[in-house]
Amino acid sequence: MIKKDIEYMRLALNEAIKGEGRVNPNPLVGAVVVKNDKIISTGYHEKYGEAHAERNALNKIGELAEGATLYVTLEPCSHTGKTPPCVDKIIESKIKRCVVATLDSNPLVSGKGIKKLKDAGIEVQVGILEKEALEINSVFFKYVEEKLPFIFLKCGITLDGKIATKDFSSKWITNSLAREKVQMYRNKFMGIMLGKNSVLHDNPTLDCRMEGGRNPVRIIIDSKLDIPYEYKVISNNEDEKTIIVTSKQMVETQKYSILKEKYKIKFITLPENEFQLKDIFKQVGKLGIDSILVEGGSSVISQLFRDNLIDAGEIFIAPKILGDSTSIPFVDGFSRSLISEAIELKNVKYNIYGDNIGLEFKK
Amino acid sequence: MIKKDIEYMRLALNEAIKGEGRVNPNPLVGAVVVKNDKIISTGYHEKYGEAHAERNALNKIGELAEGATLYVTLEPCSHTGKTPPCVDKIIESKIKRCVVATLDSNPLVSGKGIKKLKDAGIEVQVGILEKEALEINSVFFKYVEEKLPFIFLKCGITLDGKIATKDFSSKWITNSLAREKVQMYRNKFMGIMLGKNSVLHDNPTLDCRMEGGRNPVRIIIDSKLDIPYEYKVISNNEDEKTIIVTSKQMVETQKYSILKEKYKIKFITLPENEFQLKDIFKQVGKLGIDSILVEGGSSVISQLFRDNLIDAGEIFIAPKILGDSTSIPFVDGFSRSLISEAIELKNVKYNIYGDNIGLEFKK
Repeated sequence: MIKKDIEYMRLALNEAIKGEGRVNPNPLVGAVVVKNDKIISTGYHEKYGEAHAERNALNKIGELAEGATLYVTLEPCSHTGKTPPCVDKIIESKIKRCVVATLDSNPLVSGKGIKKLKDAGIEVQVGILEKEALEINSVFFKYVEEKLPFIFLKCGITLDGKIATKDFSSKWITNSLAREKVQMYRNKFMGIMLGKNSVLHDNPTLDCRMEGGRNPVRIIIDSKLDIPYEYKVISNNEDEKTIIVTSKQMVETQKYSILKEKYKIKFITLPENEFQLKDIFKQVGKLGIDSILVEGGSSVISQLFRDNLIDAGEIFIAPKILGDSTSIPFVDGFSRSLISEAIELKNVKYNIYGDNIGLEFKK
Repeated sequence: MIKKDIEYMRLALNEAIKGEGRVNPNPLVGAVVVKNDKIISTGYHEKYGEAHAERNALNKIGELAEGATLYVTLEPCSHTGKTPPCVDKIIESKIKRCVVATLDSNPLVSGKGIKKLKDAGIEVQVGILEKEALEINSVFFKYVEEKLPFIFLKCGITLDGKIATKDFSSKWITNSLAREKVQMYRNKFMGIMLGKNSVLHDNPTLDCRMEGGRNPVRIIIDSKLDIPYEYKVISNNEDEKTIIVTSKQMVETQKYSILKEKYKIKFITLPENEFQLKDIFKQVGKLGIDSILVEGGSSVISQLFRDNLIDAGEIFIAPKILGDSTSIPFVDGFSRSLISEAIELKNVKYNIYGDNIGLEFKK
């Protein structure tokens, strides 16, 4: 029984993943309905504001659901949000048994859905593939628990740890396979963050070029509004997804007004000139953005490491050597006498992309 | 037939590898004898100066060899060296067919062994798994063709390309799995080379700590004989395997005499103070040393890259970040404006060692 449960829950997890990039800041959820050891329906949470996974799976089969087992990757909701509670639908559908991978982490609802199902006489089992279910929703759980966006670092470096030459050339360090993976991240995470210098040097679009992908919200740190209008993050703002983080005193300037009215730029304003990233993240979280892909540059990345703000990341390494001490290191500003004082990345996993390698890590 | 030939030749290659570290500057050679589709003997070149692979395999079976097929990874020798010619032994043994992976690259003997076998009525086939056979003997082929040692770079770096902190702490960057692999290299290559500073900072033994391994010849660049007597490469020279590369004028000093007489140090003396590594390698080659494992430090490695002297290498990367611009980079001294001007490592292959990764490359 356990073996079968694991098998069906794995399918439900695969369903859940399909919603990546579409449901934030909701969790990814998948559901599988099984009757007489046959899968009779599947479903997932497809888009923020639309039906949940359980409802999608049950709607497809109507009365056939009676007596079936429902596998769902997260505790079904018992409260009315943008959609009616899933537990009601499950009870209505006369599901006999409900297997849940993990509880909802929101203390206001955690366990309530389970209780309601049990009270209705449904057999409930919790904890099948729990670790995997927590893993796919690490963004959601962090955001719900801490009200802060999940911070994911991406950078492409040479073998000697440089992200650009002294002349700020950075095209192309990594190969096309590695760059393709980056597009997946741009689809997965809700926001993308870059320092002003990286924008000025590379003039990036910060689009997601993955087929069927959606563009992340562009968060640019530019305390003095130095980026000219013609730069793509400003001039290509038809989707109104650019947020500039700037200092409060800039609100009075003409440039701020033009950026706001003509270019539809949104702003996060902070009192200090020397921004603390943690303060920015708090503001970003308040805007309902559950995750940020940080792509650089050096000073942003260094501050992230200094303040231990990175939840996970992938560092792409190309087999190239600059050997030039004036080129730009991906992390700088520390003073270390012993190797044992180095920053150590945890939970390391390697992905091979042809002659490039990706080092994945997480807290 | 071809499929069977490939299978047996692969076994012969596996035999060959067993001689690693014992036969330099001879090639690694393996042999397999097959009769009625059964392996009746195997052999390999076990130790420099002793019997060749073919002879080892054939000696074991005497008259049984008649009518059999001999698989051998390198063209059998036809000249008398430290041992009598293998082709004579093959002809005597009444081998019917001889399958050879690759010709000997020495133009003085290449093809002669094959001709002698054919003249004796033996069916000969050349070229089965030739690429693999060339690969396992890349050291031998380079040394025979160029009279220069094969240069293999090993270094252990942080994610930001450092081999030590500013205080020259370098213990331990890489993990125990990576360090174990290094011991294999110390067994495989005949010499090991280090600059003076690396010796002064780490006081290494440069031993091979692999079980059953043999220590490489220690080649230390120390133009002014600055390394004190009590350092291990000098004081632990019972095996008389330390060679110091120094400048000609040091020959007149008392330290040179003491090193030579009391500590049994050997010397390579060069006219200049600013040594060119290429000149050192020529001298090393003349001493019959066919390969050098270069382990550092920064200035030696940088010169190797500058002069394009590296034949192959493995760079071990640990998921640690120093983020300190005063720490020691593994390569330095270049000036690069564009990423496209970076040194690019070729034929890259990755080996995973727990949370460390090894980047193998070759010319």
